[in-house]
Amino acid sequence: MKRIVVALGGNAILRAKQLSSYEEQFDNVRRTCRQIVELIAGGYQPIFTHGNGPQVGNLLIQNEAASALVPEVPLDVCGAETQGQIGYMIQQALRNELHAARLVRPVVSLLTQVLVDADDPAFAQPVKPIGPFLSEEVAEQRMRDKRETWAHVDARGWRKLVPSPQPVGIVDVEVIHALLDAGAVVVACGGGGVPVLRRPDGQLRGVEAVVDKDLAAARLALDIHAETLLILTDVPGVAVNFGKSNERYLRRLTVTELGTLLVQEPFSAGSMGPKVRAAYRFVHDGGGRATICALDDAIAGLEGKAGTVVVPDDAMQLSFHP
Amino acid sequence: MKRIVVALGGNAILRAKQLSSYEEQFDNVRRTCRQIVELIAGGYQPIFTHGNGPQVGNLLIQNEAASALVPEVPLDVCGAETQGQIGYMIQQALRNELHAARLVRPVVSLLTQVLVDADDPAFAQPVKPIGPFLSEEVAEQRMRDKRETWAHVDARGWRKLVPSPQPVGIVDVEVIHALLDAGAVVVACGGGGVPVLRRPDGQLRGVEAVVDKDLAAARLALDIHAETLLILTDVPGVAVNFGKSNERYLRRLTVTELGTLLVQEPFSAGSMGPKVRAAYRFVHDGGGRATICALDDAIAGLEGKAGTVVVPDDAMQLSFHP
Repeated sequence: MKRIVVALGGNAILRAKQLSSYEEQFDNVRRTCRQIVELIAGGYQPIFTHGNGPQVGNLLIQNEAASALVPEVPLDVCGAETQGQIGYMIQQALRNELHAARLVRPVVSLLTQVLVDADDPAFAQPVKPIGPFLSEEVAEQRMRDKRETWAHVDARGWRKLVPSPQPVGIVDVEVIHALLDAGAVVVACGGGGVPVLRRPDGQLRGVEAVVDKDLAAARLALDIHAETLLILTDVPGVAVNFGKSNERYLRRLTVTELGTLLVQEPFSAGSMGPKVRAAYRFVHDGGGRATICALDDAIAGLEGKAGTVVVPDDAMQLSFHP
Repeated sequence: MKRIVVALGGNAILRAKQLSSYEEQFDNVRRTCRQIVELIAGGYQPIFTHGNGPQVGNLLIQNEAASALVPEVPLDVCGAETQGQIGYMIQQALRNELHAARLVRPVVSLLTQVLVDADDPAFAQPVKPIGPFLSEEVAEQRMRDKRETWAHVDARGWRKLVPSPQPVGIVDVEVIHALLDAGAVVVACGGGGVPVLRRPDGQLRGVEAVVDKDLAAARLALDIHAETLLILTDVPGVAVNFGKSNERYLRRLTVTELGTLLVQEPFSAGSMGPKVRAAYRFVHDGGGRATICALDDAIAGLEGKAGTVVVPDDAMQLSFHP
């Protein structure tokens, strides 16, 4: 079986509605899992990662609302909670869709910690907004009392900013190998994984940060020697001049071509930037190929018939790309 | 390695304080994990289950407080969140304590679903109180509008009651086997597992219920053919006439002796009832032995030098019990 790491965007669960009920979320996950079952039926062994932005946002809002009643949950523990929550939904829905397709595979969600580096420059410059929008007054109080970083985002108010360091390793990645060898479909690195630092004495500690889920997926794909990194999203692929009259979707690039493009094109529109950088990272560091495509095009994307494919510089021109 | 299922009581994490900060909770988990490392150093391969009562209670309080802001999380998904939360704390703390003891074992927390039976009589009679204490007015509204069961518990007010059905199977138990074969220390069935029903078409669905964590541990121990079920608590073992002047701790019983005792003695004090019934279930259904002892006596309990041991009727008198 061809091992592929599949990065599911938040839209695979929420379809961009932060206030979806859990019934709607489960329906969305089921739709996504039907696509995944096609991959499995096609002979692929997928390992999933998923986003958790809206879910961790909701947890932080709940924490804020109940702050006088129960202890505040730190961000690393909130991330672990979303891994449980989303992992459960994917695990149950995927098993049900496999059953409906008369396929038998164990499906397992793993709580995953991802190593980050204390010297990562990201820690000096928190840029990732998380949690509820609060007033300037509260933001200033938190900056003063808790030494947090807050920024005025828009008319909705102020939000806390946390660092987004690079993932440098997956803790206990060997258990993922063991599960794959046993034929399981694995969900790991949810929400980018819980970021942990390794102290000089070797002890791991959670840290208030978030790891980009696509970069974590690239790290995971490298560490388990996956053939392909498949990043599923809600647009057909990577475009230059996205949203403009001269918008153009890219079909196939070498990693060097992508590297050049990354310097020219900010890819700031939507969440395409991290996906493109994750695809670059995977192929640059030795991965076979990275594909970015729409969720509904997963199989076509893997076959090179849809989406954007990033290949090593020495890759032969593939026959399905005339 | 001797495989043992270790059921950790809520006190292993919270030490009975619902309002412990996460720093305190982590400290408690670390203390617990130091005991567990002794087990591992002693040649045992533990598989953990853990309670989630206080944690799921806090999540439900947070849900209630933020109900106007974000979608309410159903009980099955809340249970999954606590598996992530507590699984993360145990996984990180145990790895750190293993590292400090210069032992190398992968540690993995699995999101676990536990099958329950739609015909379980427990569904007709919800008895397990969960979540926040609310007013009579709100309770009556929920009973009327949502057909929920609520009860006046004490001066603090009314609480929702949910069913507590028997665990009849562990979904995808084969992944636990694969991980044990790979030498991992596994955390599974947290909070008793997320209870799911199997519909006539074979599809699994979460259900609003809670499975007792000790009974889930017994089910897991049977399904993975563990040698011993070790239930760790905050008292020295099982006592008859608990808290009375004629209180007497039991050292060793056959399963038939325990069955007789279960008819005579209510074991309603504290949470000993489910532990005794779990020990009975495990040995009655073919398990080797069940031990109930204090957390700090884990090794002594396994060696028969502390706690209460339940053995099959045909077990030979063990030499360490003169």
